[in-house]
Amino acid sequence: MAIDFTIPVEVDRLRSRVRDFVRDEVAPREARIFADGGPDDEVRLDLQARAREAGLLSPHLPTRWGGLGLDVRGQSIVFEEAGWALLGPLALNCAAPDEGNGHLLSKVGTPEQQERYLGPLARGEIRTAFAMTEPPPGAGSDPSALATTARQVAGGWRIDGEKRFITGADGAAVTICMARHDDRPGATMFLVEADNPGLRLVRHMETIDRISVGGHAVVRFEDCFVPDDAVLGEVGKGFRNAQVRLGPARLTHCMRWLGAARRAHDIAVEHAADRRLFGDRLADHGMARQVIADNVIDLTTAQTLIWRAAWALDSGDPARDLTSIAKVQVSEAVGRIVDRSVQLAGGLGVAEESLLGRIYIEVRPFRVYDGPSEAHRWALARRVVPREEGRP
Amino acid sequence: MAIDFTIPVEVDRLRSRVRDFVRDEVAPREARIFADGGPDDEVRLDLQARAREAGLLSPHLPTRWGGLGLDVRGQSIVFEEAGWALLGPLALNCAAPDEGNGHLLSKVGTPEQQERYLGPLARGEIRTAFAMTEPPPGAGSDPSALATTARQVAGGWRIDGEKRFITGADGAAVTICMARHDDRPGATMFLVEADNPGLRLVRHMETIDRISVGGHAVVRFEDCFVPDDAVLGEVGKGFRNAQVRLGPARLTHCMRWLGAARRAHDIAVEHAADRRLFGDRLADHGMARQVIADNVIDLTTAQTLIWRAAWALDSGDPARDLTSIAKVQVSEAVGRIVDRSVQLAGGLGVAEESLLGRIYIEVRPFRVYDGPSEAHRWALARRVVPREEGRP
Amino acid sequence: MAIDFTIPVEVDRLRSRVRDFVRDEVAPREARIFADGGPDDEVRLDLQARAREAGLLSPHLPTRWGGLGLDVRGQSIVFEEAGWALLGPLALNCAAPDEGNGHLLSKVGTPEQQERYLGPLARGEIRTAFAMTEPPPGAGSDPSALATTARQVAGGWRIDGEKRFITGADGAAVTICMARHDDRPGATMFLVEADNPGLRLVRHMETIDRISVGGHAVVRFEDCFVPDDAVLGEVGKGFRNAQVRLGPARLTHCMRWLGAARRAHDIAVEHAADRRLFGDRLADHGMARQVIADNVIDLTTAQTLIWRAAWALDSGDPARDLTSIAKVQVSEAVGRIVDRSVQLAGGLGVAEESLLGRIYIEVRPFRVYDGPSEAHRWALARRVVPREEGRP
Amino acid sequence: MAIDFTIPVEVDRLRSRVRDFVRDEVAPREARIFADGGPDDEVRLDLQARAREAGLLSPHLPTRWGGLGLDVRGQSIVFEEAGWALLGPLALNCAAPDEGNGHLLSKVGTPEQQERYLGPLARGEIRTAFAMTEPPPGAGSDPSALATTARQVAGGWRIDGEKRFITGADGAAVTICMARHDDRPGATMFLVEADNPGLRLVRHMETIDRISVGGHAVVRFEDCFVPDDAVLGEVGKGFRNAQVRLGPARLTHCMRWLGAARRAHDIAVEHAADRRLFGDRLADHGMARQVIADNVIDLTTAQTLIWRAAWALDSGDPARDLTSIAKVQVSEAVGRIVDRSVQLAGGLGVAEESLLGRIYIEVRPFRVYDGPSEAHRWALARRVVPREEGRP
Repeated sequence: MAIDFTIPVEVDRLRSRVRDFVRDEVAPREARIFADGGPDDEVRLDLQARAREAGLLSPHLPTRWGGLGLDVRGQSIVFEEAGWALLGPLALNCAAPDEGNGHLLSKVGTPEQQERYLGPLARGEIRTAFAMTEPPPGAGSDPSALATTARQVAGGWRIDGEKRFITGADGAAVTICMARHDDRPGATMFLVEADNPGLRLVRHMETIDRISVGGHAVVRFEDCFVPDDAVLGEVGKGFRNAQVRLGPARLTHCMRWLGAARRAHDIAVEHAADRRLFGDRLADHGMARQVIADNVIDLTTAQTLIWRAAWALDSGDPARDLTSIAKVQVSEAVGRIVDRSVQLAGGLGVAEESLLGRIYIEVRPFRVYDGPSEAHRWALARRVVPREEGRP
Repeated sequence: MAIDFTIPVEVDRLRSRVRDFVRDEVAPREARIFADGGPDDEVRLDLQARAREAGLLSPHLPTRWGGLGLDVRGQSIVFEEAGWALLGPLALNCAAPDEGNGHLLSKVGTPEQQERYLGPLARGEIRTAFAMTEPPPGAGSDPSALATTARQVAGGWRIDGEKRFITGADGAAVTICMARHDDRPGATMFLVEADNPGLRLVRHMETIDRISVGGHAVVRFEDCFVPDDAVLGEVGKGFRNAQVRLGPARLTHCMRWLGAARRAHDIAVEHAADRRLFGDRLADHGMARQVIADNVIDLTTAQTLIWRAAWALDSGDPARDLTSIAKVQVSEAVGRIVDRSVQLAGGLGVAEESLLGRIYIEVRPFRVYDGPSEAHRWALARRVVPREEGRP
Repeated sequence: MAIDFTIPVEVDRLRSRVRDFVRDEVAPREARIFADGGPDDEVRLDLQARAREAGLLSPHLPTRWGGLGLDVRGQSIVFEEAGWALLGPLALNCAAPDEGNGHLLSKVGTPEQQERYLGPLARGEIRTAFAMTEPPPGAGSDPSALATTARQVAGGWRIDGEKRFITGADGAAVTICMARHDDRPGATMFLVEADNPGLRLVRHMETIDRISVGGHAVVRFEDCFVPDDAVLGEVGKGFRNAQVRLGPARLTHCMRWLGAARRAHDIAVEHAADRRLFGDRLADHGMARQVIADNVIDLTTAQTLIWRAAWALDSGDPARDLTSIAKVQVSEAVGRIVDRSVQLAGGLGVAEESLLGRIYIEVRPFRVYDGPSEAHRWALARRVVPREEGRP
Repeated sequence: MAIDFTIPVEVDRLRSRVRDFVRDEVAPREARIFADGGPDDEVRLDLQARAREAGLLSPHLPTRWGGLGLDVRGQSIVFEEAGWALLGPLALNCAAPDEGNGHLLSKVGTPEQQERYLGPLARGEIRTAFAMTEPPPGAGSDPSALATTARQVAGGWRIDGEKRFITGADGAAVTICMARHDDRPGATMFLVEADNPGLRLVRHMETIDRISVGGHAVVRFEDCFVPDDAVLGEVGKGFRNAQVRLGPARLTHCMRWLGAARRAHDIAVEHAADRRLFGDRLADHGMARQVIADNVIDLTTAQTLIWRAAWALDSGDPARDLTSIAKVQVSEAVGRIVDRSVQLAGGLGVAEESLLGRIYIEVRPFRVYDGPSEAHRWALARRVVPREEGRP
């Protein structure tokens, strides 16, 4: 055992296949899909059918549910490659929020719950949602402000509360809802099916991104009854299980968006290699070289940091520091890479038709969700100082 | 005469009126207009009717054409205030490209041209376009690569070439076209009317912004005949007159976008003052204070620099260095301010409904057009070094 | 009255004379002086004799005390020019802390105090010190933590406390000491002469800079008696009078260090214009041009912001926001400019002999003293938010 | 084989011992040594005697020469720990330039050369120098500009040329000199002993750092005869062998300076944990937390990137991209970390006595030597673009 950056042969082979798939099957379709307003379920089903045929569906899920059984390091390699196309992760059924929900179900779901939800999810038959964020003064950067309540009643629970920014809620077969107990500390997760009369889609939220099927919604749970077997994980373990989901989910976001950053870089470099300016190739101008080199440095750095956090998670470490560090560093690096690529491409960079403008918009929310950079910095420093003080 | 930052009383009074106007008449209408895809001519006519009634139309144009006759410093004050609403400049008829075209017509147009185009433009009856940028390898960051040609023929000229990123071309009553001579060095500007059979709209370009009426288009001039009196400025003075337009135009962009940055900041601060997090107001958290202070520093710095360049232009100085410095510094400061505001507002920051997400998108192209930051830096350094070498 | 950036003719003429003086009389002596450990009183007396002869001594002090009577805007022009040489301000007798102390004495000193201290100070006969900062938990970024006490006794006061980072204390003829009252709120400033047995130099502090005559010291006031006429300003007005000193002092630091930044830039550009690399002049490489342009942008921006704050102070405005903004923006811009210049000059940049390395070191403390950037940002945001909330 | 970040047990044990050693034996002596002007040979011999006793001398050199035989990954762990004290690497005999020279000798030296130079070097008996950089227009960022010549004569060579910034030249027992052939392309390295009458120390160069024994010098080779067995590596392989030295040398710089950055961070955090400001611990203020978190992110990122490049070198890859990326990223991260630490510590940060000011100065040249950041970016981009163009 030693520090080693060797990518296992079988993972590398998978990477090549994913690479070919996203270039051949996904990327050529993207401009049209986004011009039409972004992907819907029809688009999703078409892309996932192609991935299924290529044997690439659900790479992160256990093989017993039809996935490819990759560990977190394997996901690092494959998700980055998938992310090269904005819709690559959707095609491979490893986009947010389904990817994180599937992971959570595979870790804490009962066999019955897995049979009922994880199987169909792994096969791309259904979509799911995760309902955590609330309007102020509820849960946001401070999860402990959770305001939605669950009241235990005969045979089950009654949930009340409003959630917002719920990605994919419109069309999700099942929504995982975080609620705190009305009569004691702690929180629990519940599986709420789409046809539950207590769950209502209040409205769609217009946000700048178009990448998610079903968009983002405000939903309301009103006297929403769920039976006892709708509890996901254990009663009272809601916050702990949220960590089960969020630790890896933070990192899988990093992987996918790193792929998108690489795409932006590739488009810009191709442009700079073609374009002549003042007699030289744009790519040979000093300022262009600086942009290109800065991108390469950021791309390599971000990837290396993801791998380290992935290894820690695979080793059983909750890796709170490393996943926070990766979230902040990678989300900001991705922002820089894409911004530089836009600038290098000039007018083309702000055109939707080049996809660069689209990538520019799509990556912006990444610095905000799953904990904005500031929340991670705050928490990091709070944990670091006492440790530092303990140093000899 | 001395260094002085006093805003003249009459300009300050006008600022207040513009401020009230954009807050009362423009800002409340914006969310809906952008949700519907951005402003069209119907929106424009409605907003401009309101501004006309308020006596605020065309503040930058000479009073003899119905404008308010502001000098560049006066514009600095008023355009920033107008820019607080994304559609404020459109309402006041001082948005790009009409504002710059009007300025150019007022400076180099013949009395007949002014009568025919500047009067209707000042009154908001027509829109105009400026056709300079070409597909590679034509004019872009390097204007001298101009590829569109003008051939002198009996009674006029025949223009041939393709232009792209032509803002407002669709619907413009007249388009100012830059073309080089086919038989000698130099370039000339021509006024081409919309019904000229030699001018063709090739296609709309999808870009990330929605702010411009008529969008951005590819247009083609094919054996396009214009009579001799369509020459704007003098034959062969095209590049010189482009500077007449571009110097101030760079700066008026800065003014308007600075207003938009201030809007983003105001929205974010209002959010931070309302929102509670971990027991304190978000606005009182140290990291939030850093964001707020950085915004204030950038806003003040950008404004001060604009004023200096405006003073130089009003003093008759072409002010190439100062307008370049302002273009780079302000466009980048605006980018930072808006990005920080988005971050401070969290989820709300990436929502279209808060306008923050929309502002985030709209300001991005500003770092690219009218010379990307890199082109200005390149030119600045090239001019500075010989001067430095001459220092004792 | 209008926005105007015209430098008055007489100030411009003075600028030229200062420029010639620092280039001819100061700059050529600097390398040797710093190699010998920095300036001492012998160096100071020699340089000031030259400035006296040139009619340039004490440009900021009233003419009745032998100064040149410049207002703050005039100082902006002249101090920047003086700062081009690290020892230029010392030569002109307008270096810290004497410059701020002279200003304070001229504003709040009694006629007798001015006769006794300000006259000799203006003529360069004596040096002075300002004793404010204390060891933790005393006064630092938080002035209200002031721990040194003044107890009223028959005929005067007894002062007790320790101060540190007291620039120029060793050799100062008089030290202005801030102390709080032992029996009521508020603080008072006292003039303590060098031979007072209650004032003791505890030790010199080794810091990275070498620019200040007398260095920085820890001093102790022990049962230090001063008579009633040693009160500077009024009893209980200590904090208010500290603002009288600090507002302009912040800005004069900006002026001087901006000059040093310009020097660093000039050295680097001269190097880049001479040096050939890969067949081209270094100055013509794209990355070098970026550095040069960024420096020019920062230099111009910083200067413009200083002028605005100077105008506000001259208009009688305490200008707390503008001087804070200038302090943060200019100190950080100066840091960037010097750092880029070092990088552009390569090996030469870290050599003491080029002065670049020395400037690099000397400018660093500027971001820390007179309120570190963080303290200014904190205060700015705290003042801004309530005002923003009051916006319509 | 898989991505793995496990530190081998024996390396981890060694790390602990080095950690204890630098904290107990080196760090407590530093303030005095630097106050006295920096380390000389007496200091070196004392520190190395302690390291020898602790069994920690020359960790990077082969065991047959008395070293600890660490591979590059092992060095990454140990050198970072050693670098926590500025003089830790000197104590362990793994400071520049001896560390790189020892590595080079171990790779390309003949058995006789190794016996004569590497043995004594490994035991800390002698120091060595590496003479590459020349005054303009000679070798600097562009090594191919090498101006020093070697002329083949009977029984040996005659070397002529001037070198500057030669670290440790004063007192080096042997100097490795790069020279180009006077009569054909290519360059060769020569071992020149101290008593060679053709080698002359021209002068010491005053630079801002004090860390290197012997400082930096200008040396001249004048008709300097060396016998045939003074050729290091092979005739004509000078540039290739320079890469043998520079690839790892770049990385070992990163390791050592990362340790220094960690030291600066530790000092600042300790200060922030002790200091109270406005009623709270400084460490709990939001802006302080941002600084601390940013440091942790930069420290972790830099370390991870070093490990990746180290693994590549251990795998036999010349790793030009990865070592360039690490050089740029780590040197800039180190600069940021130390600068933030200085700022967090306020007045203490610019004091020599806290060592923070000293670290601030010492790390600056790292962004300049071994190729300034700009040279690495330039080279990176030049290599990347053709590869990108080859992408499907």
